[in-house]
Amino acid sequence: MEIKMAEAGDVALRKYGTAMPQEALRLADAADVIFKGPIGESAYDVTSLIRMRYTLYANIRPVKNLPGVPAVREIDCVFVRENVEDVYVGAEYKVGDVAIALKVITEKGTRRVARMARKYAEMRRRRVTIVHKANVLRVVDGFFRDIALEELKGLEVDQMYVDAAAMELVRNPKRFDVVLTMNQYGDILTDLAAQVAGGIGLAPSGNIGDAKAMFEPVHGAAFDIAGKGVANPIATILSAAMMFEWMGRGDVAEKIRGAVEKSIEAGVKTPDIGGDKSTIEVGKFIASIL
Amino acid sequence: MEIKMAEAGDVALRKYGTAMPQEALRLADAADVIFKGPIGESAYDVTSLIRMRYTLYANIRPVKNLPGVPAVREIDCVFVRENVEDVYVGAEYKVGDVAIALKVITEKGTRRVARMARKYAEMRRRRVTIVHKANVLRVVDGFFRDIALEELKGLEVDQMYVDAAAMELVRNPKRFDVVLTMNQYGDILTDLAAQVAGGIGLAPSGNIGDAKAMFEPVHGAAFDIAGKGVANPIATILSAAMMFEWMGRGDVAEKIRGAVEKSIEAGVKTPDIGGDKSTIEVGKFIASIL
Ligand SMILES: CC(C)[C@H](C(=O)O)[C@@H](O)C(=O)O
Ligand SMILES: CC(C)[C@H](C(=O)O)[C@@H](O)C(=O)O
Repeated sequence: MEIKMAEAGDVALRKYGTAMPQEALRLADAADVIFKGPIGESAYDVTSLIRMRYTLYANIRPVKNLPGVPAVREIDCVFVRENVEDVYVGAEYKVGDVAIALKVITEKGTRRVARMARKYAEMRRRRVTIVHKANVLRVVDGFFRDIALEELKGLEVDQMYVDAAAMELVRNPKRFDVVLTMNQYGDILTDLAAQVAGGIGLAPSGNIGDAKAMFEPVHGAAFDIAGKGVANPIATILSAAMMFEWMGRGDVAEKIRGAVEKSIEAGVKTPDIGGDKSTIEVGKFIASIL
Repeated sequence: MEIKMAEAGDVALRKYGTAMPQEALRLADAADVIFKGPIGESAYDVTSLIRMRYTLYANIRPVKNLPGVPAVREIDCVFVRENVEDVYVGAEYKVGDVAIALKVITEKGTRRVARMARKYAEMRRRRVTIVHKANVLRVVDGFFRDIALEELKGLEVDQMYVDAAAMELVRNPKRFDVVLTMNQYGDILTDLAAQVAGGIGLAPSGNIGDAKAMFEPVHGAAFDIAGKGVANPIATILSAAMMFEWMGRGDVAEKIRGAVEKSIEAGVKTPDIGGDKSTIEVGKFIASIL
């Protein structure tokens, strides 16, 4: 495995005047898989660009309690978030004193992400909840729902409005197994679900396409704590586990996950989950017991 | 005060073939204030129609723990949700295998709802959090944010991305006081916040315009429990309190709120908040101690 480093994000923006420099783009184009850290305010120019450019159409966000981490509720589900459509297409206009953005959903885009949800459901309990708001967005969300229902035939499928889903993620998250939803609803619900599980510092994700993938923690750059050594490295480390899994090395993924659990058991934890260790200390400890 | 009853919603749809019959419309047009129960699947045809038709541009949703009700966290804030724009305008199209909805934000619409947030902030702690997603929706959400910032000058104002806000509502909801946000984000976040406070069965709301207003519980029709007598009447009763306040009868509002608190203290509660009383029993008890 060959590893190349690329600079991107707010720091690159300050240094080179662009958040996604040509060199980063070249390296990303050439890579089989991309592993990405938090970006900052320029996230759309980097994160969304990567998702769109390589059609990483499914954002896989597993949410599960970690033993020893205080949680709001028990939760064990996988979000399959459509990742390249919806209001994220960047079709926005200002006309006089009106601003308009297009929410765009395609049949093709919905089929492929629904098939990804199917794949995960088949590896789990064959249960999918489709989250939408088709009682208001009858055409667009209704379209997403109808195509998803077609692709998920034969599984146990239910539906929930996005507002009700946000509520249920706090009230009774155990009712969710695989959750299929649109891009922006997924953005909101996965942050929420991560918090319910014990905190955004633990939440990994994988942006999956047919040919390439990008892995990253769900959390952002958190400049308010940058450099203080208190950021939890686990979200990033578990994203690496997902990456290994995607590369066919489930054995490595399992090892990483085991080491993460052991670090928490041993009390080697950052403050967000009740410890007093630094980012580096936790990272080194996990690496040392791999 | 003259009270007229109008039939609308799923039941009207079955009976008359329309969720908002002419008679209901006539009565609503003539009314100074509308008090509305849950609608069901046809909510958009009734709830949104009323909001749009009378330009009830601000949806006021106070979220506060009630003494004696188990909550996820302590919370005490007021959501000011824009109520007639965003993807709720109903501009949706299907073209071939693509579906498109317009998210529409106007300057006028943003100014008036921001001024409403200002009004609430001035009655409270002069603090407003604007919730948007301007890192992705740079034009549209950025437009909303910029105009809101103008209207809120002189107050203590901060901003949060909608995904982070969902997380913070679980992690540390005490940080919110007045929350100003767009229609769909508000839809999602207020259900969530109500759950954090102890459940959607307690959450009242007021849809406010310059000339008219409509009050309703935040929760929906919940057909799964309809007729079982387990629905919590408090959200509806507290919506009535908001209505009296809006009509200039803060004294009546206070009485209603006091009676609601006493009912909980006395243990006269529906099952959702740990009691064993029925909807009617709770309602009658509250009425009896008014
Ligand atoms: C930073 C932002 C562009 C991004 C998104 O909204 O998708 C982030 O919140 C995420 O969830 O990965
Ligand atoms: C029923 C629906 C149209 C409505 C909305 O989405 O606004 C409801 O969820 C609400 O929050 O009042």
